[in-house]
Amino acid sequence: MTRYEQLAQQLREQIRTGVWQEGDKLPSLRETVRRSGLSLMTVLSAYQLLESQGWVRSRPQSGYFVAPTREVTRYASPQQPLQPAETVDINAFIFSVLQAGNNPDCVALGSAFPDPSLFSQHQLSRSLIRVARQLLPQSAGATLPPGCADLRRSIAQRYAARGLEISPSEIVITSGALEALNLSLQSLTRPGDWVVIESPAFYGALQAIERLHLKAVAVATDPQLGMDLDALAQALQQYPIKACWLMSHCQNPLGGSMPAEHKQRLLTLLAEHGVSLIEDDVYGELYAGLDPPLPVKAWDTEGRVLHCGSFSKTLAAGFRIGWVAAGQQAEAIQRLQLMSTLSTSAPMQLALADYLSSHRYDKHLHTLRRTLEQRKHIFYRAIKREFSDLVRVHYAEGSYFLWLEMPEHCCATQLYWRALKAGITIAPGRMFAAGEQYRHCFRLNASLPWNARSEAAIRQLAALINEHIH
Amino acid sequence: MTRYEQLAQQLREQIRTGVWQEGDKLPSLRETVRRSGLSLMTVLSAYQLLESQGWVRSRPQSGYFVAPTREVTRYASPQQPLQPAETVDINAFIFSVLQAGNNPDCVALGSAFPDPSLFSQHQLSRSLIRVARQLLPQSAGATLPPGCADLRRSIAQRYAARGLEISPSEIVITSGALEALNLSLQSLTRPGDWVVIESPAFYGALQAIERLHLKAVAVATDPQLGMDLDALAQALQQYPIKACWLMSHCQNPLGGSMPAEHKQRLLTLLAEHGVSLIEDDVYGELYAGLDPPLPVKAWDTEGRVLHCGSFSKTLAAGFRIGWVAAGQQAEAIQRLQLMSTLSTSAPMQLALADYLSSHRYDKHLHTLRRTLEQRKHIFYRAIKREFSDLVRVHYAEGSYFLWLEMPEHCCATQLYWRALKAGITIAPGRMFAAGEQYRHCFRLNASLPWNARSEAAIRQLAALINEHIH
Repeated sequence: MTRYEQLAQQLREQIRTGVWQEGDKLPSLRETVRRSGLSLMTVLSAYQLLESQGWVRSRPQSGYFVAPTREVTRYASPQQPLQPAETVDINAFIFSVLQAGNNPDCVALGSAFPDPSLFSQHQLSRSLIRVARQLLPQSAGATLPPGCADLRRSIAQRYAARGLEISPSEIVITSGALEALNLSLQSLTRPGDWVVIESPAFYGALQAIERLHLKAVAVATDPQLGMDLDALAQALQQYPIKACWLMSHCQNPLGGSMPAEHKQRLLTLLAEHGVSLIEDDVYGELYAGLDPPLPVKAWDTEGRVLHCGSFSKTLAAGFRIGWVAAGQQAEAIQRLQLMSTLSTSAPMQLALADYLSSHRYDKHLHTLRRTLEQRKHIFYRAIKREFSDLVRVHYAEGSYFLWLEMPEHCCATQLYWRALKAGITIAPGRMFAAGEQYRHCFRLNASLPWNARSEAAIRQLAALINEHIH
Repeated sequence: MTRYEQLAQQLREQIRTGVWQEGDKLPSLRETVRRSGLSLMTVLSAYQLLESQGWVRSRPQSGYFVAPTREVTRYASPQQPLQPAETVDINAFIFSVLQAGNNPDCVALGSAFPDPSLFSQHQLSRSLIRVARQLLPQSAGATLPPGCADLRRSIAQRYAARGLEISPSEIVITSGALEALNLSLQSLTRPGDWVVIESPAFYGALQAIERLHLKAVAVATDPQLGMDLDALAQALQQYPIKACWLMSHCQNPLGGSMPAEHKQRLLTLLAEHGVSLIEDDVYGELYAGLDPPLPVKAWDTEGRVLHCGSFSKTLAAGFRIGWVAAGQQAEAIQRLQLMSTLSTSAPMQLALADYLSSHRYDKHLHTLRRTLEQRKHIFYRAIKREFSDLVRVHYAEGSYFLWLEMPEHCCATQLYWRALKAGITIAPGRMFAAGEQYRHCFRLNASLPWNARSEAAIRQLAALINEHIH
């Protein structure tokens, strides 16, 4: 952790334990500099970080005040915490955005994947070569659903290390988490059924809903705390919900993670209504701080939670290996997979099993988390510096996304097209909802190395936003 | 070609050109031996082959007579050439059969894949190692849908070598042909739509129909000639059909291939009704004789045919690489893939592209075709010898399946369970239809090496059938 992160964490703890309460004025910057021996820049960064996380508010000429504790405003406007959508029609646009992002000449600030140079390619390639040398034609049979036994055991061991008791027999290996999520949703629903998703949501959820001919209630989701559970309770009462799909950690696109107490209440609510949870946890390994957070699955005693994970965001985007710890649905999901893709490729499964058995993954993850946090801070500071008053920047701990909010009259889709011409991609808010409510927002990937190219891209983006706003 | 195959081909040509007409008695075995200089066994084999293919019929004590020319009886009973099925419910059984077949201790006569030892594992592994050594983290981007450009170009070159003009941009790389077929069907239909499938059909078609909540008309399909086009015409008039899914070559499970003139008539019929064709051609490379047959796609000038192919039956079952030349649907299919599995794994695509660029594939296929033909003949003769009058064996050219028909009161599902106990799998007829009409039939995989183990399995199977019938 950097110094300003340490300071921010101290202050957060003080607010949490009631040293500072709602409305209290925090010690001034100057005072804190004197007391701590830190530089003014460091102290300012800490206060700005706390502000972006919703813990404090600045008042011009007065200093920083503690914000209403944990009562962060609902993100969606209170008039419409629920956004039922009979049909979802956004795929054509998302398709064009994904295709455009495929251009290696672009600065990929719109990408959902971390900078590929952070991947552990060399070690993985060694595993793949080792597997290729020993590959038998018969190996295909041993990797059919539920998938390679060694790989499932390694994944179960990783759960066990966090205190989760997941049997390897409950785990199904899939073509990335995307297949796991899709098969999970399909196993729980029939066309015409209602499901709950987040607002804003990972566009894969919106697409799955369209593809499976479902109806969605999008529940307001807070940039720091995740889904609004009061709004969820309301949705569960008003609609015949069959499944709830959300991200418990480092939500895409907002970045926030649910506190543990929210996770428990979420599960209680869903259990009351007999609703299953699809827990998309592809960024779960990219937590901030020292200890990994527990997924909702940790409190699940009924096999109600389908916990979906992946190696695509941490190890190798192109291997296309994910999994679901599927609880009651484990067999249903295997059947659906046998029907739709048959299985994940045998050499990829075997190579990952080989890699995991080398116990290098945790070391790699440790380094990756540190690097991502550092890079995100640098991006965050650069954006604060360059965009100054143009946008509100939401900073949440973990992962590598920043969520930017322009004034409401702005359109991030227009900004997207202009940025694309300048060789920069962003992920416009329109991708993350069926409606227009996030058209003024966009997601930035802050995992790129900070160099002349990315610095120029941020400056260019600032100029484009400035032009767009004025 | 073996000597008896050559003789059979001569006789077939003579029947085709009218040298011998319906009801004619063919030269006796003895006479043919004298005239040709071939052994009695060779001549007998040729006549039996023609009989199994429906060209001639034997009459006890009288010899062989030419069967009604090309007027092979419809395979489904004439009272019900159409079998509309509101829902299809067979997946649980298929799932258990596939899981059981996964046991390496079983003699896998029920497998849909050729004997793995026939695969070109060594060359492929070399390509995989070469790719793994050069793998860049960035390579994932270049293999997103529609897939690796070099691989698509190689596939387009293979089409071109057969005289088909398919642009690489029309080709989408998929996770095996199964994903290609599923995405094709999904791109053409919505829940509740009607589609035409074969009867009996590849169970993947039945499963896709259930999974996508479609309704199916199963059209009678002949073991030699493929789908009954009169029955298809009837189906197209009676039902609002959106798509037709069939196998033009080496139909699974029957083994037969459509004659060229049927292919043309099929396409004309479908075009009249504005219906698209999903042409499942995963066995297309496993043709008999010297020249590859043209797929229906060859006559398609409107982009109406979605031609699905794969390397899983010819090169490596576990790589999970297939494709679809998707005509008008190429972009729709890419979108569906981006939503459901994102893409096929990058190293697998790159390794196949590397392998195909070495131009070893055609040589491998040549050897594979010869070996499969030889093995199938050996199995066919052994079955004729062991099962004698117990079953009717349908022999069609190409691929490696034999379709066996027991007396109507028999149940191949029961036989399946008994054989499984004895360490032998078969593919019971119940897997290939929504109804019970093929419960007395089963499919055998004739690609295994002929050795003590397979010989014992055929003997054991004969004993079990004998026991079951009597």
